[in-house]
Amino acid sequence: MELSPHRVVATRIFDLTRCASMSFSAQRQIQTRPGQQNQSVSAFHFEDVYPSVDAGRFAVKRVVGEPFEVWADIFRGGHDILAAELLWRLERDNNWNRAPMRLHENDRWHGSFVPTDAGRYLYAIEAWTDEFATWQHGFELKQAAGQDVSVDALEGAGLLTHAVFGSKKDAATIVRQCDKYLETGDTTALLTSELSEAMSRSQPRPDLACSHAYPLVVDRQRAVAGAWYEMVPRSQSREPGRHGTFRDCIERLPDVAAMGFDVLYFTPIHPIGMTNRKGRNNALRANPGDPGSPYAIGSSAGGHDAIHPELGTIDDFRDLVAACKTHDLEIALDIAVQCSPDHPWLTQHPNWFKRRPDGSMKFAENPPKKYEDIVNPDFGCDDAGSLWNALRDVLLFWVQNGVRIFRIDNPHTKPFQFWEWVIHDIQSRDPNVIFLAEAFTRPKLMKGLAKLGFTQSYTYFTWRTRKWEIEAYLNELTGYPERDYYRPNFFVSTPDILPYHLQGGEPWMFKSRVALAALLSGTYGIYNGFELLEHQPIPGREEYLDSEKYEIRTRDWSKPGNIKPYITALNRARRANPALQQTRNLRFLRVDNDNITGFVKQSADRSNTVVGAIALSRDAHEFWLPLNDIETAGNGGFREPAALENLMTGERIPVEWGGARLWLDPGRDPALLFRCLA
Amino acid sequence: MELSPHRVVATRIFDLTRCASMSFSAQRQIQTRPGQQNQSVSAFHFEDVYPSVDAGRFAVKRVVGEPFEVWADIFRGGHDILAAELLWRLERDNNWNRAPMRLHENDRWHGSFVPTDAGRYLYAIEAWTDEFATWQHGFELKQAAGQDVSVDALEGAGLLTHAVFGSKKDAATIVRQCDKYLETGDTTALLTSELSEAMSRSQPRPDLACSHAYPLVVDRQRAVAGAWYEMVPRSQSREPGRHGTFRDCIERLPDVAAMGFDVLYFTPIHPIGMTNRKGRNNALRANPGDPGSPYAIGSSAGGHDAIHPELGTIDDFRDLVAACKTHDLEIALDIAVQCSPDHPWLTQHPNWFKRRPDGSMKFAENPPKKYEDIVNPDFGCDDAGSLWNALRDVLLFWVQNGVRIFRIDNPHTKPFQFWEWVIHDIQSRDPNVIFLAEAFTRPKLMKGLAKLGFTQSYTYFTWRTRKWEIEAYLNELTGYPERDYYRPNFFVSTPDILPYHLQGGEPWMFKSRVALAALLSGTYGIYNGFELLEHQPIPGREEYLDSEKYEIRTRDWSKPGNIKPYITALNRARRANPALQQTRNLRFLRVDNDNITGFVKQSADRSNTVVGAIALSRDAHEFWLPLNDIETAGNGGFREPAALENLMTGERIPVEWGGARLWLDPGRDPALLFRCLA
Repeated sequence: MELSPHRVVATRIFDLTRCASMSFSAQRQIQTRPGQQNQSVSAFHFEDVYPSVDAGRFAVKRVVGEPFEVWADIFRGGHDILAAELLWRLERDNNWNRAPMRLHENDRWHGSFVPTDAGRYLYAIEAWTDEFATWQHGFELKQAAGQDVSVDALEGAGLLTHAVFGSKKDAATIVRQCDKYLETGDTTALLTSELSEAMSRSQPRPDLACSHAYPLVVDRQRAVAGAWYEMVPRSQSREPGRHGTFRDCIERLPDVAAMGFDVLYFTPIHPIGMTNRKGRNNALRANPGDPGSPYAIGSSAGGHDAIHPELGTIDDFRDLVAACKTHDLEIALDIAVQCSPDHPWLTQHPNWFKRRPDGSMKFAENPPKKYEDIVNPDFGCDDAGSLWNALRDVLLFWVQNGVRIFRIDNPHTKPFQFWEWVIHDIQSRDPNVIFLAEAFTRPKLMKGLAKLGFTQSYTYFTWRTRKWEIEAYLNELTGYPERDYYRPNFFVSTPDILPYHLQGGEPWMFKSRVALAALLSGTYGIYNGFELLEHQPIPGREEYLDSEKYEIRTRDWSKPGNIKPYITALNRARRANPALQQTRNLRFLRVDNDNITGFVKQSADRSNTVVGAIALSRDAHEFWLPLNDIETAGNGGFREPAALENLMTGERIPVEWGGARLWLDPGRDPALLFRCLA
Repeated sequence: MELSPHRVVATRIFDLTRCASMSFSAQRQIQTRPGQQNQSVSAFHFEDVYPSVDAGRFAVKRVVGEPFEVWADIFRGGHDILAAELLWRLERDNNWNRAPMRLHENDRWHGSFVPTDAGRYLYAIEAWTDEFATWQHGFELKQAAGQDVSVDALEGAGLLTHAVFGSKKDAATIVRQCDKYLETGDTTALLTSELSEAMSRSQPRPDLACSHAYPLVVDRQRAVAGAWYEMVPRSQSREPGRHGTFRDCIERLPDVAAMGFDVLYFTPIHPIGMTNRKGRNNALRANPGDPGSPYAIGSSAGGHDAIHPELGTIDDFRDLVAACKTHDLEIALDIAVQCSPDHPWLTQHPNWFKRRPDGSMKFAENPPKKYEDIVNPDFGCDDAGSLWNALRDVLLFWVQNGVRIFRIDNPHTKPFQFWEWVIHDIQSRDPNVIFLAEAFTRPKLMKGLAKLGFTQSYTYFTWRTRKWEIEAYLNELTGYPERDYYRPNFFVSTPDILPYHLQGGEPWMFKSRVALAALLSGTYGIYNGFELLEHQPIPGREEYLDSEKYEIRTRDWSKPGNIKPYITALNRARRANPALQQTRNLRFLRVDNDNITGFVKQSADRSNTVVGAIALSRDAHEFWLPLNDIETAGNGGFREPAALENLMTGERIPVEWGGARLWLDPGRDPALLFRCLA
């Protein structure tokens, strides 16, 4: 029987109306339900999806403008040629964006996109068989083997008639090439790359399969990089004994901004209770005039949405927020979910608080410790819904007043599901809000808080002093899977913590600690007074004597011996070098000295490469900094650095024999910091 | 105000009717829905659940009688004392079984159970706050600190009145202790361990949370350990040229059983097609009398549920199954989902098969290779449902005729979702059915098939010859996560594969290969003729010359030079040593010789410890086998072995200086195998 291509192919008619009446992507949309959490049984396996946190139970974290690369094993049975796309959308949007995925090797595929907006995203993977590419591949193999391919050609032409046109251009290509083959019998018409591409977009995808959707939270850049200055606002007056005000704080801004800080973080600013008010040094009873702890929140002047009258008014606060902006500073507020016995909620919502069998208030406690100036709302009370909403509204109130960063006090002692809900709720209204988890607790809980939604987290850095423990800890935080959800904020000290190694007051140690914090972590912070080398402890404890949690302090902010110039130089280096505005990019260099840690950080495009070495003891040492596995961008390629530029002194030294022999004298400066020159 | 304990506690009445009217576990059942795949937002995090495959997308595999230990990070916010239980059930059952989980350290918990039946299970974790234990802990701390605890005692007694009684004994304990405290005011009545235990079972669990449910497949022991003998049934006649029958196979059983094999695995036994039948050595055309390939399934005599007439009848087959049983052998059938052009399905179900534009049959192909004696049913055809059911019914037919092991030919070229469905379907009817995936393909596909449900898998062992690649491959298969879903079946050769290293026919190499397979893997197989050192290749290819896929072979099964005694000794050692009836328990020992691999395997209770060394080259060597990190059970404890007993010769040698210096002469025996003596 002689075959007429026309007889076979012409029985199917190109239905060009499909082009106009139905967009291909719309049709695909119907088949695509990546919102489903259960990966249904399908022809395709999507495995080992990276990044993902707990298989999609929690969101991966990234920042705006950073390419988001997704890798996955994608396969199905058989030898057919596959195609895959990466899908993504803002959770609140309905339409998926798409980017092609490419086969890397060994059934591992990758694709990427750049999120341009902050917000909560979903991403997923679609895969299908590229039937036409499979046909072309087989056809070419048979042709090369000298086999009769006339029927094969008809099969290929038949596939063309099944196209569902996504664009008029593709439709024209497909119809034209099919026509050419039918008229001339020339099978090369079926093998052009233009046709392959048109068909890759236009053929039906009957076995289209979709992975489940994974969550991604995209934050603004401040989520990964920022220098924080913690300030107790009532201590900012210049006159000893006078309660500081927001106006005093405004006067302090030039000093803080000059040091190069990005975030001005305030301990709680709310009215302080009178009942059971704590005295100086955490005394059980306050003396007359003692200001009390700002963590005993609430008085007749109001609760979490009010301002302590002695600090000023809400208008003063708004002025402060505005003044910060002019200094490139941003306010971070400390939110402690706890109430003084005088908090308005105790009378407005008595059912939010537990009473004891004798009718007395159930104070906060951590047996045998008691906190009699504080009562905790009961998250499990019968009226928990209204309590949760009220706490959410407190955050919203401060957002409405210009606050976009919240440091949450002790989140680990409250229900995790509350935080998951409230962070999601607030960020769905304003994705620029940043939440820092102030949890110093067991490692799994700290990681759990980071997973459920906290943007940043406190860390154990404050107590890590030896080289091996610093490097092991940072390798943990920057390794998999922590790198994708845990963003450290390194504090050198806090109002509650004066670590033993600072109690000697040695300038080199203060400098070493702040250099470690500022250079190893994208986000770090100091607590006011650190720059003045304050170091008086309660004897035998890692706590400040005369803690300003319980009294007003007045300081000479230019006290001789301060290390403000040093901190200023560090912050200047951070701002000038994108490599220092991240944490995940950290890699330690092998320095054969247990008292010197060496590291390298590179920007994603490797155009900015910073290497450094920080002393962990006071002794001066000569050491070798190996640079032979570092490649930095320059002269149109990537190469080993030719020289190092000292970021503090401007001095240049050549890189020879794959590294540099350096001299580190902590007495002068415990850190050496260089930019690599190509 | 003076407090009367009676006033406070007596307002709540012990409702003993709860004990009778409502079982506690039933109440809990209502709150427990671990069948849900999505872990809902709850107070608890369940993280890093081990074992689990792809976060529960696929089942973990275990065998009957093996303790199943589950580990997980379990935590919630706060410092309260938690409790957790491991839940499990056969998927088809409704009631969960429970076992307590214990805190190991660092928020990691573990629990276990021993599955007694084969089948598909689900397991999950429940956690809740043990409020009474938390109260007791705080109470004791406060008491130790000398605080006034009278109100605390009342709070504790109050908790007792909320108990929901699970048993009369617990109810009695709780009522008695409460009574005692109320009558005497003696708070020690509230602190007994009997009361703690009763309350741990009886208090409400308002914050009870459940992980999602993870699947587990429990197989019979043969799934992890078995020696397979692959037999081509038509080659079993003793008369050259006569087609072998099942009767001939029955006569061969004593020989196979005497070698110590557990599984007798047959190439396909179905009628062979005539159309395009292949001739000897895969010739395109058969000569008259050529028997054709048993993989070209189907003729006028029937299809996949029929027996090739020359082999015998279904009754003969049943006799064979019965005869195998008397020899402690079990039949494994080879199932190839492909049809000769003469298969009855082609006329009964023409819509299951693709036709080409010229009306001709679409033969199987892997361009440019063509398989013109085979057509593949189209799993994506419009009538796919009936095709899938028919294939399932083929398997059921053989199950009904006594087959419990199927070796599936080339499963990777069929849709993965078909296998996931059909294996699940068959095993839900008979959980003792074992499926072996004969897929030699890309690694991700082989692992994907194992994940979706294949009980065992072929491997790359057949081609792995060097020490580093053997050890790396086995470390991969026995490491995480493969250890939990991939069960290797090591074949030394197959009818399709005569690897280059066997083509020299050297006895030491044949022995080395079978020793590696039999000792390193719990399941292994040889293809008949291997014991006779058959090694004639098609020149330049890893294939047998005169392959019995295309002709009938007659062999002298006692041919001089055969290594049957050697194989027999290996299988005897396997049967006598539980340590050798597993794969996951393999650990390599450091032998400083690139041609000797050393290993240890232990039974779970360490009562049986086997160490061995296998030569990978023909040279004799002296070497050191380190044993200093092995502890074997004996004399009521665990200790370094005192001596080794050679499992082949019975000879004993002492262990000195933490190891043994050994002499390995491959010419005599390429493997040394010892049982450790305590």
